[in-house]
Amino acid sequence: MLGGKSLSDVKIFAMGGLGEIGKNMYCVEYEDEIIIIDCGVKFPENEMFGIDLVIPDISYLVDNQHKIKALLLTHGHEDHIGAIPYIFKQINVPIYGGRLTLGLVKAKLEEHRMQNDVKMIPISEDTEIPFNRLKATFFRTNHSIPDSLGVVIHTPEGMVIHTGDFKFDMTPVGQTTEYGKIARIGASGDVLALLSDSTNSERYGFTMSERTVGEGILDVVRKARGRIILATFASNVHRLQQVVDAAEQCNRKVAVIGRSMEKVFMIGQELGYIQMPEGMLIDIKHIDNYADNQVLIICTGSQGEPMAALTRIASGSHRNVSIYPEDTVIISASPIPGNTINVSRTIDKLYRAGANVVLSHVFDIHASGHGSSEELMLMLSFIRPKYFIPIHGEYRMLKTHAKLAQQVGIDESNIFIMDNGEVLNCNREKAWLSKVHAGIVLIDGSGIGDVGNIVLRDRKHLAEDGLMVVVVSLDMKNFKILTGPDIVSRGFVYVRGSESLIQEATLLVRQRLQEALDKKIKEWSELKSQINEVIKPFIYEKTGRNPMILTILMEV
Amino acid sequence: MLGGKSLSDVKIFAMGGLGEIGKNMYCVEYEDEIIIIDCGVKFPENEMFGIDLVIPDISYLVDNQHKIKALLLTHGHEDHIGAIPYIFKQINVPIYGGRLTLGLVKAKLEEHRMQNDVKMIPISEDTEIPFNRLKATFFRTNHSIPDSLGVVIHTPEGMVIHTGDFKFDMTPVGQTTEYGKIARIGASGDVLALLSDSTNSERYGFTMSERTVGEGILDVVRKARGRIILATFASNVHRLQQVVDAAEQCNRKVAVIGRSMEKVFMIGQELGYIQMPEGMLIDIKHIDNYADNQVLIICTGSQGEPMAALTRIASGSHRNVSIYPEDTVIISASPIPGNTINVSRTIDKLYRAGANVVLSHVFDIHASGHGSSEELMLMLSFIRPKYFIPIHGEYRMLKTHAKLAQQVGIDESNIFIMDNGEVLNCNREKAWLSKVHAGIVLIDGSGIGDVGNIVLRDRKHLAEDGLMVVVVSLDMKNFKILTGPDIVSRGFVYVRGSESLIQEATLLVRQRLQEALDKKIKEWSELKSQINEVIKPFIYEKTGRNPMILTILMEV
Repeated sequence: MLGGKSLSDVKIFAMGGLGEIGKNMYCVEYEDEIIIIDCGVKFPENEMFGIDLVIPDISYLVDNQHKIKALLLTHGHEDHIGAIPYIFKQINVPIYGGRLTLGLVKAKLEEHRMQNDVKMIPISEDTEIPFNRLKATFFRTNHSIPDSLGVVIHTPEGMVIHTGDFKFDMTPVGQTTEYGKIARIGASGDVLALLSDSTNSERYGFTMSERTVGEGILDVVRKARGRIILATFASNVHRLQQVVDAAEQCNRKVAVIGRSMEKVFMIGQELGYIQMPEGMLIDIKHIDNYADNQVLIICTGSQGEPMAALTRIASGSHRNVSIYPEDTVIISASPIPGNTINVSRTIDKLYRAGANVVLSHVFDIHASGHGSSEELMLMLSFIRPKYFIPIHGEYRMLKTHAKLAQQVGIDESNIFIMDNGEVLNCNREKAWLSKVHAGIVLIDGSGIGDVGNIVLRDRKHLAEDGLMVVVVSLDMKNFKILTGPDIVSRGFVYVRGSESLIQEATLLVRQRLQEALDKKIKEWSELKSQINEVIKPFIYEKTGRNPMILTILMEV
Repeated sequence: MLGGKSLSDVKIFAMGGLGEIGKNMYCVEYEDEIIIIDCGVKFPENEMFGIDLVIPDISYLVDNQHKIKALLLTHGHEDHIGAIPYIFKQINVPIYGGRLTLGLVKAKLEEHRMQNDVKMIPISEDTEIPFNRLKATFFRTNHSIPDSLGVVIHTPEGMVIHTGDFKFDMTPVGQTTEYGKIARIGASGDVLALLSDSTNSERYGFTMSERTVGEGILDVVRKARGRIILATFASNVHRLQQVVDAAEQCNRKVAVIGRSMEKVFMIGQELGYIQMPEGMLIDIKHIDNYADNQVLIICTGSQGEPMAALTRIASGSHRNVSIYPEDTVIISASPIPGNTINVSRTIDKLYRAGANVVLSHVFDIHASGHGSSEELMLMLSFIRPKYFIPIHGEYRMLKTHAKLAQQVGIDESNIFIMDNGEVLNCNREKAWLSKVHAGIVLIDGSGIGDVGNIVLRDRKHLAEDGLMVVVVSLDMKNFKILTGPDIVSRGFVYVRGSESLIQEATLLVRQRLQEALDKKIKEWSELKSQINEVIKPFIYEKTGRNPMILTILMEV
């Protein structure tokens, strides 16, 4: 068993999370056991028109389903738990996670009516989960959500450590990092591999403490004369508690808006993660019963998401809240790269409506949940692994993390910057790379994976140049056009003002089609390509555009 | 004449550039004269699918064409000159600008084959242009392109000053700001209004000097062992000169790639703005004839633009250049908000290809061309206008600039944060607001303004959910379906695997249509809405999507 002589190697790989931010899903495989760590979603890139979510393609795991022992969750963020409802339609294994983490998973499964199909086992940092040859233990970390855990997979070849997302916050809100336990793991000298969070590897120094944020927010709340509207990430329960505390100190009632924010407040209060005096939480519909300086509204929309509460408030389309000139709006978050423009637009609208807007690049009202360079080096120094795999990050972040590892003495040849699907096979003596299948699956509406490259390419084409549909009905016995060609366009040009363009095109198509019929051409593909040949260059010459041409021939 | 008693007011307004970054176009109107300052384009926002450019709607100017005396250009950036080929199809007046500015305008007009239709008059900071009651003079400024000018419009009610884009660079490359002239303008005590650049109003302090950037670049070039590939804005001629100088000092030949970069090098050398020793510029095809440490490549793509040189090099699809592991890539630019993700993607690919990437947030290799808070306050202190209009910026930048103006003593009631189309009517005694029409015109391919909200809404719909076309041919005499319904989809679902969905939908449509025909319904709109009624909820229930449904009925 553990520690006994082994003939096998440990395989470490990711189904998602390497070379990207999001859809984190890491696996440790040993003989006939696979342990999965996290199961996250990723938000679609710009060009993925109409796609709601992206999840990992887990065909490898489906093929090896009999080996999978468990899904261990490090914490409850979307990029770590969001894919569960989709992935668990394909595989089904027990899920282990902290109480809050499982609370959030449960809410998610209920939305998909799957809550009865999945076994969930709550764990703490002291839990031990023995499998067959493998065993899992945990350590407490700090991150921007409570119940964050690091994972230790004990294998016959030594320990594999997965940090989850973490920072070393010396003055945290909530749980403290288990520094001693982490140091002891490293001191054992038996760490085969470390997988560590690279999100902030490009930032120098130490990440600001969540406690400092609390003080910054209290400062702003204290000075504000009118109402306060604060937007932040719903899942940042520590932050929410600090906002509630600031409101309490300044005698303000708290109202909550936004679906995910309401959900977190419910789960958070239920599980004891958010504590507030009786009667302090008021319904958003009743805020006008209180003086402006007695109200603090917590809402979603810190990323300028089009349908979120703050965005609606800013554009004056929220049912219950509009901006008054004395309002102070606190955006307790940084814009995630793809969202910069949406956030700017929201801020602009808030200013126009007369609000005083307080932003995190000017005031200490937001801190990242991920450790910066010094913290990452501290983790590496604690753990002192034989092999190091930087995880959670785009390539340059992994690369930068790898350089940090070299600086604290990890041998360059023992650092592996991997892609999803790349497998690190390793034992105490050596390590080498191989591959399993990895990829992406797109979620659109209720469809999982039924949108792929062809559909996306068509959507892009339609988005850029629109569409012309050409319909003709033919009498193929007599090689005659019966009705049409009718040309209908969408997303191409204003119909008004373009009548003559459409008329000319119709004429050209009719001529060419009749010529082809006169030559007794019967094949529809040939007739269609004749139509395309005449209409495409004509439209391009007249408009400089290439709409999608859809030709439909009907034989009557 | 000038200085004489007047009965009229000065009108100041923008056709574009207020509450936004881009399409700058400001007007000063007095009695029967209008002077236009700048004529820029704006790049489309995310949701403007397929749009190439956005220009101002100048219907007001077209209606008042007889009054327009001139277009004055402050400098040659796209957001100040880019709309000329489109606007000058509607109006035609003499264009005044610096030599480089006009060189760039000429190249632009040539592309549109309009170079012979427009009168262009080169000016310097010493030019005086007398109109009738109005007169224009200029002052030299510093910006990230040579030949940048501020404009003074002399009116019977005092001077109206337009700063153009500017920074106060104490150690500039190229021309020096005319501090004395600017100070004298203010000292005259006769400045009616100041319009000043707000782009960097949110940044505290003084913007870094272009000279510092030169030193930063030289530093990197000196240390590099392999080739150097440097990407920057093509129009930043000062920067290009500094890069050329650094290359010369380190004995490197220079090759240039990217269409706009080649154009600027040609115009810049022709007009003497870029100077380099004979034989230093080499053809990109010949770089392999030189040792790696003798080559410096200047290219476009600093914003991660999909078709630009650096982007292609990074993804290995450039004809002449691919990355070697010892290459140093310098990105001498900051990502403009909407481009962050594209830039990240390019950097990631460069890292993967093995390049050493040098970025401006770590090294002093880029400086903004726009003044920060202290510079803006210095300009206000020099000019001491009666009325102040912050220009060039989103609302919050204008607002922040307005606060700076208050700090240096401009009365709040004399500061006007305006929208495009808002008119400041003013004289020495008082000022009030009115309105003229302003709006946007979308450019798509060769079409100017033939794409509007309906087309964009359709493109968005098509982009998100794709399309289903339902075609049926009918015998309306006998109320019979002749052929069809045929259902064709694009951008909706993979066709393979969705056959049964389409079959079911076809069946439902056929049934409902036949029922309607049995009831002798003849109106096509009614038949179409019957089809929609059955197909939309069916598709939504099955897929969670709302594709555009296009129903085409043909009577045969």
